[in-house]
Amino acid sequence: MTDTIRGIVAYPVTPFSDEGGIDERAFRRVTENLLRSKPAAVAFLGSAGESAYLTEEEWRHGARLGVETVAGRTPVIVGVAELTTAAAVAKARYASEIGANMLMVIPVSYWKLTEAEIFDHYAAIATATDLPIMAYNNPGTSGVDMSPEFLVRLVRELPTVRFIKESSGDLNRMHAIYKLSNGTIPFYNGANHMALEAIAAGAAGWCTAAPNLLDDRPARLFELVQAGDIARARALFYEILPVLRFIVFGGLPTTVKAGLALRGLPAGAPRPPLKPLVEAELRKLAEYLAELKVGPIPA
Amino acid sequence: MTDTIRGIVAYPVTPFSDEGGIDERAFRRVTENLLRSKPAAVAFLGSAGESAYLTEEEWRHGARLGVETVAGRTPVIVGVAELTTAAAVAKARYASEIGANMLMVIPVSYWKLTEAEIFDHYAAIATATDLPIMAYNNPGTSGVDMSPEFLVRLVRELPTVRFIKESSGDLNRMHAIYKLSNGTIPFYNGANHMALEAIAAGAAGWCTAAPNLLDDRPARLFELVQAGDIARARALFYEILPVLRFIVFGGLPTTVKAGLALRGLPAGAPRPPLKPLVEAELRKLAEYLAELKVGPIPA
Amino acid sequence: MTDTIRGIVAYPVTPFSDEGGIDERAFRRVTENLLRSKPAAVAFLGSAGESAYLTEEEWRHGARLGVETVAGRTPVIVGVAELTTAAAVAKARYASEIGANMLMVIPVSYWKLTEAEIFDHYAAIATATDLPIMAYNNPGTSGVDMSPEFLVRLVRELPTVRFIKESSGDLNRMHAIYKLSNGTIPFYNGANHMALEAIAAGAAGWCTAAPNLLDDRPARLFELVQAGDIARARALFYEILPVLRFIVFGGLPTTVKAGLALRGLPAGAPRPPLKPLVEAELRKLAEYLAELKVGPIPA
Amino acid sequence: MTDTIRGIVAYPVTPFSDEGGIDERAFRRVTENLLRSKPAAVAFLGSAGESAYLTEEEWRHGARLGVETVAGRTPVIVGVAELTTAAAVAKARYASEIGANMLMVIPVSYWKLTEAEIFDHYAAIATATDLPIMAYNNPGTSGVDMSPEFLVRLVRELPTVRFIKESSGDLNRMHAIYKLSNGTIPFYNGANHMALEAIAAGAAGWCTAAPNLLDDRPARLFELVQAGDIARARALFYEILPVLRFIVFGGLPTTVKAGLALRGLPAGAPRPPLKPLVEAELRKLAEYLAELKVGPIPA
Repeated sequence: MTDTIRGIVAYPVTPFSDEGGIDERAFRRVTENLLRSKPAAVAFLGSAGESAYLTEEEWRHGARLGVETVAGRTPVIVGVAELTTAAAVAKARYASEIGANMLMVIPVSYWKLTEAEIFDHYAAIATATDLPIMAYNNPGTSGVDMSPEFLVRLVRELPTVRFIKESSGDLNRMHAIYKLSNGTIPFYNGANHMALEAIAAGAAGWCTAAPNLLDDRPARLFELVQAGDIARARALFYEILPVLRFIVFGGLPTTVKAGLALRGLPAGAPRPPLKPLVEAELRKLAEYLAELKVGPIPA
Repeated sequence: MTDTIRGIVAYPVTPFSDEGGIDERAFRRVTENLLRSKPAAVAFLGSAGESAYLTEEEWRHGARLGVETVAGRTPVIVGVAELTTAAAVAKARYASEIGANMLMVIPVSYWKLTEAEIFDHYAAIATATDLPIMAYNNPGTSGVDMSPEFLVRLVRELPTVRFIKESSGDLNRMHAIYKLSNGTIPFYNGANHMALEAIAAGAAGWCTAAPNLLDDRPARLFELVQAGDIARARALFYEILPVLRFIVFGGLPTTVKAGLALRGLPAGAPRPPLKPLVEAELRKLAEYLAELKVGPIPA
Repeated sequence: MTDTIRGIVAYPVTPFSDEGGIDERAFRRVTENLLRSKPAAVAFLGSAGESAYLTEEEWRHGARLGVETVAGRTPVIVGVAELTTAAAVAKARYASEIGANMLMVIPVSYWKLTEAEIFDHYAAIATATDLPIMAYNNPGTSGVDMSPEFLVRLVRELPTVRFIKESSGDLNRMHAIYKLSNGTIPFYNGANHMALEAIAAGAAGWCTAAPNLLDDRPARLFELVQAGDIARARALFYEILPVLRFIVFGGLPTTVKAGLALRGLPAGAPRPPLKPLVEAELRKLAEYLAELKVGPIPA
Repeated sequence: MTDTIRGIVAYPVTPFSDEGGIDERAFRRVTENLLRSKPAAVAFLGSAGESAYLTEEEWRHGARLGVETVAGRTPVIVGVAELTTAAAVAKARYASEIGANMLMVIPVSYWKLTEAEIFDHYAAIATATDLPIMAYNNPGTSGVDMSPEFLVRLVRELPTVRFIKESSGDLNRMHAIYKLSNGTIPFYNGANHMALEAIAAGAAGWCTAAPNLLDDRPARLFELVQAGDIARARALFYEILPVLRFIVFGGLPTTVKAGLALRGLPAGAPRPPLKPLVEAELRKLAEYLAELKVGPIPA
């Protein structure tokens, strides 16, 4: 089921209820909304899903809900981002038990990690389950920076590590992954603000929370580039760019939750110390969505 | 008890037993060793103490052990570094209940925090207990960078926030804190490799794990600068600089645990994915300690 | 003649004779070789042309030779990169007098310049001649970093400043120029290693010394993207990428002169302290050119 | 005469007359003012002296005037900062011919230089005259960054290269120079805003334009640290720090010329594109000088 992920990997936020735990009803609406956006896969409990801010029990709750709601309609990816190898392995096993289809694994650093340390972290997770793994590089949030050479080595030496997600926003790294593997390792762009160029450069897909607010526009952008309709792809990209930049630079949980509320799907506030979007920014987002004629989300 | 911290704030590592939890006996030896180094305070569960890698129960265990072992011989500081405000408040309360004397609080980011978010995080912790608080800035490990202006504002507006620890290694920030407060806010240097200069610049103290390996040399350095014996202070600083740089750039838990083992105090391995120090580096550390005539630690 | 520059702006090196001045014969061969590469314009005395290392008299010699050799077959751009406004104005006037078609102007800093200082620098040059101007941003070599907002302001407020060359290698800036001007200001990519993506993003052209070694491959890449043949464009880009990266990271005069010599067109050494390419690097370049089946340059 | 430079190396600005060339009368007053500030040496045609903005003839004029005015009362250092080795050698020879006592040499890059290229640049200059040389590292203005290891190698392998000036503002580099040479190579601090700490770290001197505005305060700071009076040194440093920061971050020629005019010594405007200090900044500088009770300069 996970051999052919080409296109949009959509990232839901994790809605909280006023009492503090996951709001199941909102969670399902958020997921259904993404399923309508023509994704190639849905990835739960990533950065956008505030996984770093969840208790362990909440994380398991979210993973279960994700698998249940998608119910096989598209591949389900679950994010694993832990400081200790033991905790990462435990989450990987849980994801496998409940029927997830793939893991997206990012190492997290407090103390700087050597490549030997990162490699063994991946190896321990990879041998803990049979699930295919997407190695995920995002130095800005994780504090760990893996080079293209190292990422390609992970794919070559660990059989279940088969995909790379690059969120550093550095085209040179995508070029290097492509050249080092002769274009054979599928890599995914995680930097929203350069999606057009990453797809042009050969990315197999685009990992993004944007479909929460932009519906199938990201999927259309992907298709237009594949079809060689560069002029229309470029026009669409520049049209949605203000929203892409807004959600990246304002923080995904804060901005996407604000945008969902504007679209009639209240998903709660992000978890403190994160605060809801301030009024002036909210107005700006409302304008951007209005310009794009983004409508309300079906109940 | 915490009005007059001037000098060295010593940071223990957290020793693990082979079974995985905290090794109580080694923990006590590590603490006693620091108490002999003439510290102005001891700070448990900081970066060096691998607090980011502990379960919540282990963290409480470490805090209790620290307070019990010091038993009033010097002020006890406990580190609070949490992604969510709720978890930080819970730890602050626990530290207060068990009799710690001060909190050292650092915000941690996954998503970038605004100053309003950071301020409220501190405010929530500050109102949760009566303990004095040291606001701690260390962008390299925490992902949050607080400006001198903001740190001074925290001290001015939150009555129990009374101290600042600066680990960014940027002298300009120490200068700014000094100028903004007319020298009235005690600030502490957390950047080992520039301890001489930070003390010259007016730091009230030096927060460091170095006494684990260097005994009272850091305390002597502090005293020499205070006494105006710049020539001997400089000579001592350059003498210990290789060890200071080694433990900073190799990661405190990894290098300090290795050094303690060399000194006859096995404190276990750091927690995976962190690995023990590699052989070549261990030899280098052994040489540095031998040159300084650092001896074994009393049983 | 300069209203419609779309495609490749080709940059010659400046060949030196053994006696030290410009080697006229080699200069003409270098220029003819570029004219065969299907350029939209040729730009003399840019970074690749070692203009920073020429005496004033040599600079004038090079400008004259350029205009004479091209002889109207394609627009001639002349680079103006001076620390003082007076020297820049003098060169602009000279370029105009001898019949150049356009100026490419980059401010150079020793002391950091304010925007007011940079603006007046451009204004003085712009009013000194009637030539259209390409405002050129390359913080890495010039020490001056102009924001997209400022560059767009230059175009809006100074009538002859009509084009922008961006060499910072930051896609966000191209996006900003596009959005700020609704796609109306032609911008040119100066970062070889991301040419594919810059063209996809809407660059009107690509300023490059690569045609010296790659003949019409850059022009073909530009055409393939325009034609929507992304698959072949991508294949060609990844094919020539090693050479693009090699000449950028090894320094254009050093590497391009080495490559020209390999192709049978000795263009002398770069000017000291620059040295000729070291042997190991020269072999690497020879391999890259052999793989691409780059042949000798006609006499 | 140049074996014992310990203390302040004072940097004059280069005053221009309204007609454009060097204003000789103002030049002499600027120099006499510096000679009263208790310098260990005076360095003409450095960054503060706008040497990058002078024609070759003006540069020679300035060098001659400097040597004549000082007339042996203190060692005269002349700055050599050229893109080409040939031009640097020519200036070094001229400085030697007119009786300067030392050269301060900084390589300048347009194209990034390898260590082999920088080494040969220094070697050519060093063999061109008998003058002792201060190797000068200032990546921010020159675009060339020389490591401590490389700087120490220059001193070891080129007999007349005997001093190092470090303006990167990175304490680690001063530490490295000290450790690599066992404290035997005299190094000078060129970063005004950390003068206190650099002297504490063992700098043999402080290269600064500050005496133009602060008279002998820099010399006193140097003496106080040497004498071990850290408390008074620190107090003096924090007192003058606003001026030190102001002249560094506002650009030396612009701010120092403005300050000299405030003190009754009009030294003309800096050379365009540099502009005179804007009004609001000028008021700030006037306040800083008033607070320090800096008085007018004797005619």
